[in-house]
Amino acid sequence: MAAKLTDLIAELALANRILAHEGVLDAFGHVSVRHPGDPNRYLLSRSRSPLLIEPGDILEYTLDSQPVKPPKAHLYAERVIHGCIYQARDDVMAVCHHHAPAVMPFCIAGKPIQPVFHLGAAMGEDAPFWDQYDEFGDTNLLVVKPEEGQSLARTLGKHNAVLMNRHGATVVGGGLKELVSRSIFMCQNADYQLRALALGTPDRLHPGEVKLAGTLSLLPTVVTRTWEYWSMRLKASGAIPPRGRAAKSAPPRAKARRKR
Amino acid sequence: MAAKLTDLIAELALANRILAHEGVLDAFGHVSVRHPGDPNRYLLSRSRSPLLIEPGDILEYTLDSQPVKPPKAHLYAERVIHGCIYQARDDVMAVCHHHAPAVMPFCIAGKPIQPVFHLGAAMGEDAPFWDQYDEFGDTNLLVVKPEEGQSLARTLGKHNAVLMNRHGATVVGGGLKELVSRSIFMCQNADYQLRALALGTPDRLHPGEVKLAGTLSLLPTVVTRTWEYWSMRLKASGAIPPRGRAAKSAPPRAKARRKR
Amino acid sequence: MAAKLTDLIAELALANRILAHEGVLDAFGHVSVRHPGDPNRYLLSRSRSPLLIEPGDILEYTLDSQPVKPPKAHLYAERVIHGCIYQARDDVMAVCHHHAPAVMPFCIAGKPIQPVFHLGAAMGEDAPFWDQYDEFGDTNLLVVKPEEGQSLARTLGKHNAVLMNRHGATVVGGGLKELVSRSIFMCQNADYQLRALALGTPDRLHPGEVKLAGTLSLLPTVVTRTWEYWSMRLKASGAIPPRGRAAKSAPPRAKARRKR
Amino acid sequence: MAAKLTDLIAELALANRILAHEGVLDAFGHVSVRHPGDPNRYLLSRSRSPLLIEPGDILEYTLDSQPVKPPKAHLYAERVIHGCIYQARDDVMAVCHHHAPAVMPFCIAGKPIQPVFHLGAAMGEDAPFWDQYDEFGDTNLLVVKPEEGQSLARTLGKHNAVLMNRHGATVVGGGLKELVSRSIFMCQNADYQLRALALGTPDRLHPGEVKLAGTLSLLPTVVTRTWEYWSMRLKASGAIPPRGRAAKSAPPRAKARRKR
Repeated sequence: MAAKLTDLIAELALANRILAHEGVLDAFGHVSVRHPGDPNRYLLSRSRSPLLIEPGDILEYTLDSQPVKPPKAHLYAERVIHGCIYQARDDVMAVCHHHAPAVMPFCIAGKPIQPVFHLGAAMGEDAPFWDQYDEFGDTNLLVVKPEEGQSLARTLGKHNAVLMNRHGATVVGGGLKELVSRSIFMCQNADYQLRALALGTPDRLHPGEVKLAGTLSLLPTVVTRTWEYWSMRLKASGAIPPRGRAAKSAPPRAKARRKR
Repeated sequence: MAAKLTDLIAELALANRILAHEGVLDAFGHVSVRHPGDPNRYLLSRSRSPLLIEPGDILEYTLDSQPVKPPKAHLYAERVIHGCIYQARDDVMAVCHHHAPAVMPFCIAGKPIQPVFHLGAAMGEDAPFWDQYDEFGDTNLLVVKPEEGQSLARTLGKHNAVLMNRHGATVVGGGLKELVSRSIFMCQNADYQLRALALGTPDRLHPGEVKLAGTLSLLPTVVTRTWEYWSMRLKASGAIPPRGRAAKSAPPRAKARRKR
Repeated sequence: MAAKLTDLIAELALANRILAHEGVLDAFGHVSVRHPGDPNRYLLSRSRSPLLIEPGDILEYTLDSQPVKPPKAHLYAERVIHGCIYQARDDVMAVCHHHAPAVMPFCIAGKPIQPVFHLGAAMGEDAPFWDQYDEFGDTNLLVVKPEEGQSLARTLGKHNAVLMNRHGATVVGGGLKELVSRSIFMCQNADYQLRALALGTPDRLHPGEVKLAGTLSLLPTVVTRTWEYWSMRLKASGAIPPRGRAAKSAPPRAKARRKR
Repeated sequence: MAAKLTDLIAELALANRILAHEGVLDAFGHVSVRHPGDPNRYLLSRSRSPLLIEPGDILEYTLDSQPVKPPKAHLYAERVIHGCIYQARDDVMAVCHHHAPAVMPFCIAGKPIQPVFHLGAAMGEDAPFWDQYDEFGDTNLLVVKPEEGQSLARTLGKHNAVLMNRHGATVVGGGLKELVSRSIFMCQNADYQLRALALGTPDRLHPGEVKLAGTLSLLPTVVTRTWEYWSMRLKASGAIPPRGRAAKSAPPRAKARRKR
């Protein structure tokens, strides 16, 4: 179990860096995974830009998004997004919240992203919109209160993703690798859909195609291929690699934080 | 003959990496070449992202897309694209299937790519569309059955490329270098055509210009120049170089696979 | 005080390089900060491309934009932009003038940038336009005369940024880190707004949202996260790091200049 | 004189690499400079992609575009572009022919590039169009015959640049550094103009502004700044540096060619 957890923490750190390097995350956004040994816990980094996250940055949270151990570092303000979705969706094992440039035009124009190529089917038939203003009026648009997270989770419903007006998107998956693939392919899909509009009306997948193609990214050959590819691209980019592996919920290095 | 084959396998691995680095291939897509000593065989990598392919990954297939030796690795699901085209077209010596971002808007909007600049003439007068749904109804859009590959090859006909609705493109060539040039120039052409639409109606090449400019990329000075350029860019990018050369149909290193 | 100044000079050099690496500045553009010990002085590099600026390049200027010590190097022609804004705005501690590709379409079409996502609120409700031609007729569009700088400062008024027709933008902040964040987020906002237009009418933030979200980038957790991220990206890019720290107003190395 | 020529040859090789790295040139395109000691000669590389050009690749040509020494390497097919312009324009000291992605939409839609920001004024008031088909009918669109080069030079007339339908652009300058700046700024201008169209009607510079801003890139402070910046970016990219300096018209290394 301990080895499994250590591996999952390393994979979560890598998932953060891959999604950052592939243009889904930037200075912001975060990725979590449900605790493999306790469905009432989830794992998420301390507040840090995803490209920099190391295993030692990963902390353990309750589903109320409270850190299990007293935190020695800043925490993400929007962690209720993760906790509230894990509470509402037993089937969700991993969550990514992001502001990817590819989806932002849709979040700003309020127009739906639709699956327009086979890999884009990973997003499902459609993704609902959630406008924080509708229920909560003027806010700074961060999802920080439990009731905000719960409202977002309600709109997500059984979908694979939810678009947040004037803010970004939240994507869920049955596992980390599924989540990473879905997040990346949904961004590619959004980019292709937007540019196809310059030519005419984009042709969305038939409903049956969405169902059949929606699980393509779960095929073992596909997972092996994409994970090796994204990992190698990250490595070749020279972005900072993790300096070591952390034990369960290891607190982030206090010295490094204090310097800052 | 053995030396010639070894060289061609190295060139095929390099062609994969060049097309990946130049933005034609990504985690997906694949490139094959007809066997230089046996027109009823072709060479194609095991299932792996093109940017990572080494000579040792290249396997030999029959035109029914069966591996000649029992495979020790996962194979590309869509290899019938290659086999069916080699069966239908004696003149084709190399095939590339891809989902390049530059062509995707056209594949999604169902609007034709047309040669709009001299190097774009490498694609020929036009490229037909093939919609898997028309003949096969709901699928996951992968071309995996022989009858799907044969249908695609029929639509390709005598053209240099075929666009696949909601999926991507398949390009053919009389040799590997011709194929690489054609694939890259067709993507540039698609990008220029799309952006020219923001200004007005793109001006396509005159038919006589397409014929005359269509062979530009085959000129020895051009081939020398482009191949040196693309190889150098790939090298400068720091992407992983091949660790060694493989003998004919060498099976991929089992250890490396097992680790995964 | 001396240590504080040395640190601020190092931070100003880094701010230049970060803004260059993040695509706000290119061969041109410049960033200044008000002197921490004397509100009637400001710090700005000698004439040099921002990506290359080292602490030793930073000079001290009066608010009339005259160098405090006789300069041994070329100075930026447009430094009155900085001096005139510091004269007009007591609250401004840092100024950035740039021609970022993201804002140029707006400066050329004369259409306003509006806050369309939460981080974009850092720009404020809107940014006025200033057309040098209106008051000064034909010029080379550089802001070099005190009256040109004063006119620009008047149009800026109490805003966080001003768009300059057919030229670029000038952004101000209450400190260097606020300025860097605002400049970057405003460029992202402009990019998203432009691309959202392909889908329909961009949905701007509600006025109350702009107020609440406008200070997001000042949150300590956000500042820590963004600064670490941008610094790391700059470092990973291999762009030239500063060779050393300079004492107060150290003149640029004459030898290096003479070589040129 | 010999030292001056050696320096100019090194600068020409660097100009090629800078223009390639800044996205003006790719596998194709070429840059020449008039011989500093003989106005009836010009210097141009052997046929090679610009990013790879070293001083040893530079050859000397007559204005009839014949190599002065028997060539040991392939030559650019389109060198008459250079010779014919040097014959027609005494004031031109440097020529660049390119297919930059930024200008291609204009060359394809046949819509003019207009100066829309201060640095874009380097292109002048406008750039005429030349359609090879109008005078020569069906060709492969390469400018290879003297009469083709002469026709292009006639259309260029007294302008700074000429757009070639379905092909690219040719830019001229009073010196290498002016040419490099003009080529880069004209591409930026084209990119901004195209994207401004998504917002409305681009606002072109007033005629007086074009005159005054047109010489901005010749200011010594600007030249120093841009050349240092572009050189540093090239260096940081890891693209291959020249291995040494060549004497006058040194023939390219035959061994390297033969390997190819």
